[in-house]
Amino acid sequence: MQQSKFKLADWTARNKSSVMERMLTALSDPDLISFALGLPASDFFPSEEFARCFSRILLKNKRSLQYQPPLKSLKSHIVNLMKTRGLETSEENIFLTTGAQQGANLLVHLLLDFNGDVILEEKTYTGFQQVLKPFAPRIFVIPSSSKDGFDIDALVKILESGVRPSFFYTVCDGHNPLSLNLSIAKRQKLVELARTFKFPIIEDDPYGFLSYDENQFPPLIAFDSEFVFYVGTFSKILAPGLRTGWMIIPEYLTAQLGSLKEASDINTGTLNQHLINEYFDSENFDLHLAKLKEEYKKRRNSLNDALNQNFINRAQWQNPSNGLFTWLELPPEFDTEKILEHSLKTRKVAFIPGHLFNVSDSRIGSNCLRLNFTNNCPDTIFEGIHKIAKVIEEVV
Amino acid sequence: MQQSKFKLADWTARNKSSVMERMLTALSDPDLISFALGLPASDFFPSEEFARCFSRILLKNKRSLQYQPPLKSLKSHIVNLMKTRGLETSEENIFLTTGAQQGANLLVHLLLDFNGDVILEEKTYTGFQQVLKPFAPRIFVIPSSSKDGFDIDALVKILESGVRPSFFYTVCDGHNPLSLNLSIAKRQKLVELARTFKFPIIEDDPYGFLSYDENQFPPLIAFDSEFVFYVGTFSKILAPGLRTGWMIIPEYLTAQLGSLKEASDINTGTLNQHLINEYFDSENFDLHLAKLKEEYKKRRNSLNDALNQNFINRAQWQNPSNGLFTWLELPPEFDTEKILEHSLKTRKVAFIPGHLFNVSDSRIGSNCLRLNFTNNCPDTIFEGIHKIAKVIEEVV
Repeated sequence: MQQSKFKLADWTARNKSSVMERMLTALSDPDLISFALGLPASDFFPSEEFARCFSRILLKNKRSLQYQPPLKSLKSHIVNLMKTRGLETSEENIFLTTGAQQGANLLVHLLLDFNGDVILEEKTYTGFQQVLKPFAPRIFVIPSSSKDGFDIDALVKILESGVRPSFFYTVCDGHNPLSLNLSIAKRQKLVELARTFKFPIIEDDPYGFLSYDENQFPPLIAFDSEFVFYVGTFSKILAPGLRTGWMIIPEYLTAQLGSLKEASDINTGTLNQHLINEYFDSENFDLHLAKLKEEYKKRRNSLNDALNQNFINRAQWQNPSNGLFTWLELPPEFDTEKILEHSLKTRKVAFIPGHLFNVSDSRIGSNCLRLNFTNNCPDTIFEGIHKIAKVIEEVV
Repeated sequence: MQQSKFKLADWTARNKSSVMERMLTALSDPDLISFALGLPASDFFPSEEFARCFSRILLKNKRSLQYQPPLKSLKSHIVNLMKTRGLETSEENIFLTTGAQQGANLLVHLLLDFNGDVILEEKTYTGFQQVLKPFAPRIFVIPSSSKDGFDIDALVKILESGVRPSFFYTVCDGHNPLSLNLSIAKRQKLVELARTFKFPIIEDDPYGFLSYDENQFPPLIAFDSEFVFYVGTFSKILAPGLRTGWMIIPEYLTAQLGSLKEASDINTGTLNQHLINEYFDSENFDLHLAKLKEEYKKRRNSLNDALNQNFINRAQWQNPSNGLFTWLELPPEFDTEKILEHSLKTRKVAFIPGHLFNVSDSRIGSNCLRLNFTNNCPDTIFEGIHKIAKVIEEVV
């Protein structure tokens, strides 16, 4: 890499390109079957409805292209949407963002000091890990398992040792990458810990609305709206190309977050705010979401069937209740980074090796694969899983 | 303000709401004549063309709603656009952003360490000052004047004293708030200093394309593409509601900036990228920009005429060659914060008092007003300036 003639910020020296980033460049091959990224299915984006909405907005109101304060009517739609998850909130607590990623980013800037303390699960969404890098935080890691999530006793131990983290970050529904839903008992216990030890929780919830089974629990914020910051997004239930999401926050923090938001990108794209608002006003979101869940459930079941055909008694997995991913665990002696290398070369199939989500440098999960099931149709899912099974036989 | 039960990041304690922020709430009154904000004119947004473009994009390509890498064809359009400013660059140097604000934000994160050193002009765009707050930097301030811009001798003195800033930030064309264009000699000298003392320059250029007179100079980056980072935007030449801009950077920094970008909001709204690309492909941008400049020039001249009618021999100003603002300087004994207070109360006219742009706590410029001329039609400009003149008579 070329050296700059001036000094860059210190953190950049530690920011080596990751296996993940190097791998992602391989994904541009159009012949590849990819289970790698967290992509929703393009097929189900309501693009015709959006085209109608844009025409209506653009012809009636030029101010939809101007700088504007956050759209109150869109906040009302979000309040109603959250009711379907068992949460009562109000417009004053909704803060619009340029997608969930920005929500998490603003909250970190609000809460974390340079070199501050945070507690994370061993397996954490890599985009969130990226946010932390420039802060060079001291990270306390707790184990997490695909069976029942993070180890809450390990969390208690760290807190009892006197650590007061700037926050604890988690995904409760359709965990990324472990694909599980946290039990109700653990949700309650986590919120109790936050109150007792006075630390805030960042609840990242991109997948809570994508539920495929009856047995659903309310999000953490339904248990406590003072210590829990909720991060939501339209990316997975409408389309990521709109880059529109929201936070639910205590109202007294609006000004501080507003200052960070202004510094980040002034305001959330006005036109897309108006688009989503118009969509909720005049199209049928409930029907859209119901259909989306039905289609994704079919794909989830196809993946489950394909795994049953190819991996029964050779690997472990759970059919997830929410989200975009299934977590597949091979016996401990398998190395999924090596398998991926061969898979890309010989069969053109991609997935993400489990240890690439690790917060620490450990190899925990290097026998695991994160498999996305939303971005391929059932036939392709069967074909891809069969190929992965073949690669594994060849490599071993 | 309500106290949180957990600790916020240290910088928030210093982040008191500014006079600027308190004032902005007054601007929501629809009867107000506002010269305050840097708004382009909604009337001239090409909304019908956009509606056509959206229909075409959405019906032909669902991937325009998906996560996607930056659109190469849009980068080509930007390369061509920059040619009109006398710059030869290439797609590999273009980095798409969620507006210019994000460009500046990412560059600060790339370059500045916590408690690092920066050099700023006394009068600096407040949105940029917001970016710096969480870094608690040591700021070296150099005087700036509406006649010939920042004091380059003061800059030399600081550099010769041994200070090596993480960057120097400036707006060369249509300076915000001072509304002047930097001389060619100063541009050359500034770039020489950057090379000699090895510090990068952040060139924020929202207004370079909005030129109203013949006498234009190339942007700083045309003099040096190694030490100058250029920040551009479609906000002022198409529409701010699209939140799409670009940086021009040395290619070797793409990975580090990409990591920061991913942490900020994953990618720049795909749909708006496709929209702007389609607009450049199939509509007439050159004609649009020519018309926009013609209309803005009329408004600039109306403001100049109104100032001549009401302030001749009572104040000083220059008719600006670029941008959205005229800087008006009253005699030193006037207090524009007091004038604004009365103006809002008795005549419902708004502007921004000059000292609110100060980096330091000084009152320098408290006899000055920043006046936007793009967001009002000529009649309203005359009415508003006449009212401000009346208020000044009443207050004194």
